[in-house]
Amino acid sequence: MLDEKVLKEYNPYLEVKDGELYLEGVSLKSLAQEFGTPLYVYSASYIRDRIKAYKEAFSGALICYAVKANFNPEVIRVAGEEGAGADIVSGGELLAALKGGIDPAKIVYAGVGKTVPELELAVEKEILMFNVESRDELYVLDEIAGRLGKKARIAIRVNPDVDPKTHPYISTGMKKSKFGVNFETAKEEYRLARELKNLEIVGIHCHIGSQLLDVSPYREAVEKVVGLYRELTEEGFEIRYLDIGGGLGIKYKPEDRGPSPHELAKEVLPLLEGVEAQLILEPGRSITGNAGLLISQVQFLKDKEIKHFIIVDAGMNDLVRPAIYDAYHHVVPVESKGREHIIADIVGPICETGDFLARDRRIEWLERGDYIAVLSAGAYGFAMASHYNVRPRPAEVLIENGSYRLIRKRESYEYILNTI
Amino acid sequence: MLDEKVLKEYNPYLEVKDGELYLEGVSLKSLAQEFGTPLYVYSASYIRDRIKAYKEAFSGALICYAVKANFNPEVIRVAGEEGAGADIVSGGELLAALKGGIDPAKIVYAGVGKTVPELELAVEKEILMFNVESRDELYVLDEIAGRLGKKARIAIRVNPDVDPKTHPYISTGMKKSKFGVNFETAKEEYRLARELKNLEIVGIHCHIGSQLLDVSPYREAVEKVVGLYRELTEEGFEIRYLDIGGGLGIKYKPEDRGPSPHELAKEVLPLLEGVEAQLILEPGRSITGNAGLLISQVQFLKDKEIKHFIIVDAGMNDLVRPAIYDAYHHVVPVESKGREHIIADIVGPICETGDFLARDRRIEWLERGDYIAVLSAGAYGFAMASHYNVRPRPAEVLIENGSYRLIRKRESYEYILNTI
Repeated sequence: MLDEKVLKEYNPYLEVKDGELYLEGVSLKSLAQEFGTPLYVYSASYIRDRIKAYKEAFSGALICYAVKANFNPEVIRVAGEEGAGADIVSGGELLAALKGGIDPAKIVYAGVGKTVPELELAVEKEILMFNVESRDELYVLDEIAGRLGKKARIAIRVNPDVDPKTHPYISTGMKKSKFGVNFETAKEEYRLARELKNLEIVGIHCHIGSQLLDVSPYREAVEKVVGLYRELTEEGFEIRYLDIGGGLGIKYKPEDRGPSPHELAKEVLPLLEGVEAQLILEPGRSITGNAGLLISQVQFLKDKEIKHFIIVDAGMNDLVRPAIYDAYHHVVPVESKGREHIIADIVGPICETGDFLARDRRIEWLERGDYIAVLSAGAYGFAMASHYNVRPRPAEVLIENGSYRLIRKRESYEYILNTI
Repeated sequence: MLDEKVLKEYNPYLEVKDGELYLEGVSLKSLAQEFGTPLYVYSASYIRDRIKAYKEAFSGALICYAVKANFNPEVIRVAGEEGAGADIVSGGELLAALKGGIDPAKIVYAGVGKTVPELELAVEKEILMFNVESRDELYVLDEIAGRLGKKARIAIRVNPDVDPKTHPYISTGMKKSKFGVNFETAKEEYRLARELKNLEIVGIHCHIGSQLLDVSPYREAVEKVVGLYRELTEEGFEIRYLDIGGGLGIKYKPEDRGPSPHELAKEVLPLLEGVEAQLILEPGRSITGNAGLLISQVQFLKDKEIKHFIIVDAGMNDLVRPAIYDAYHHVVPVESKGREHIIADIVGPICETGDFLARDRRIEWLERGDYIAVLSAGAYGFAMASHYNVRPRPAEVLIENGSYRLIRKRESYEYILNTI
């Protein structure tokens, strides 16, 4: 059975008509038939709404969409059309953002291992701000900017040592993590940066982690950052941007409730009393996560003595989150036929036991050829896809208001095997 | 310090000359400088030696290299030149094997979710044997073979319910896994297959898992399979191939000892008394794993209060095994400069804490621009690489006896961002 009420909590553009799942008025079954499976589909209106929600909650702030969540240039374009900038972490993401139409003056660039060619490209494009993660990076960036006859605007990424209580792989603001500089010594780095004449200090950056379902850890981080802001301002630094990162969690399990940008604003904005810098936020997952679904077709069913298996044509190469983070993704049939429910593992075709989409999941009995939809797949889905088992990466379709278009064609075997 | 004795236990073609690491007589530093980093390098002679070792240990057996470990067609070609066939799990791997020069008459095809186009391709190419994983697959394959006017040779993959005591993600022969048919009911499937007139029953297949450092679990599995062989033979089935899968483990940690094909043979061959079928083995990791290294360049060093970080230009998109399996890979400097040793995390540039190559590892102090080598990276390295953070996948170089050639060029940003 398809419970429209629950589905709309994931994405209000999901509908059930005659037992069939629709997104923004488009039948997902018809898309699967037209483009084949596995297939990523994204709802453009959902992305627009989420950017708008951030802009409304944080009036005057710059919302930099975190490209790492979903780097399709057409997805980035939708966010950009609503006024978003981009948060990038590599030279490739800079090119993706530019291809998606983002103005370099709205791009911020974090990352602990920026290479010389990547820094050169970003300096040449005159992006808004480099979020510098180490003292050595200050020197390297200064040298590059000088060589290219530019000034590089920088923030220093400070590590507020806050535990966001999320998966350890996506906690990024703790002292023991590789990110940023220690909070206690940050001022020394600012003083040092002031001596480097091709750098212009314009901001402070922090980011505490990803998939936060509780906004309270932001309070501690922002309090610390605002304290640093005041100290730096007293020392004569002109801090124009306060970049507090991203990390708002989204609904994966039916019982999850992703906090709204408004709730985050209620926690954070009162702390900014008297702060004159522009706020920057870097949401990724909370923009595209529930915009997207992964559609897959049932290949075989197995009724083994102690377990049911539903074998579909999407594997861990297409969506690695279950394998890597033991992540829950809600799975529903694209078409409900009112059959009985079973408890089953929904698994892919890849030759390892780690290749599963869902385990011990209650789902309507399916048959060969039926389609399933994996929810909350718009972030860290295609972005982490691989060619494992020589499997071409899926196609991607963008849906808006009853129409749709292919925004990435299915990969060809020729490409994967074309070595030179 | 580079300990040549330990390095040679990984791969005898590794050498240290004047403090610098060489593979098959080629300086890895010079390759890194010529082709850039991150860079996968493979030793062809090592691959040849491993195939030969299997052939010597299992005289008369067909050694089918498991393409999933490393699908570069030029790597496959080296295995094929030594007489290996291929174990494939997808249509893409079939194309990779053919491109690598493997004769279809030496190809076996397993996988729980074979699609119709994949099965059609394999039927048309007249591969040696389909390792069928479910009753429904028998019907589907029979229909396709009939439609194409061919006979499909099959084995049924039986699940011996043996615990290989390896990582749960790569245990594949337990009852609760998605693979194969239950051992107890296998005979029913064989009887059913006999009724399907476009199928020809030729074998039995099992595979218990991957990275087995102890060969004893093979005994139980092979005993069961040989029992089934005798029963089927008595019933008049002509079993020509006994495919006992792959799974031999390799040295990852300095204290690991990967069992030799000879040790496996000593365990397995005595069980085959009176068996007239040809033996098939499917080694993957034990062929290419220690043939390969991932070379990466140090970008930044961080000496945080409680931890040292060595930030390199290879990330979890290039080598995901540490993140996904919490796998150990030995890491050494490409050039030892006799500096003091530290305990450090060796991490990549990707924006998540899960992006690490090694944690709390004792290693010689390194400087920006130095190169490191990640050992045991020839299997499930490039094969699982992704574009996460819009990072192009590495180049691959094949080395043999003092010479080398590029076997996959570094991916371009243009390709990653070319959506249509």
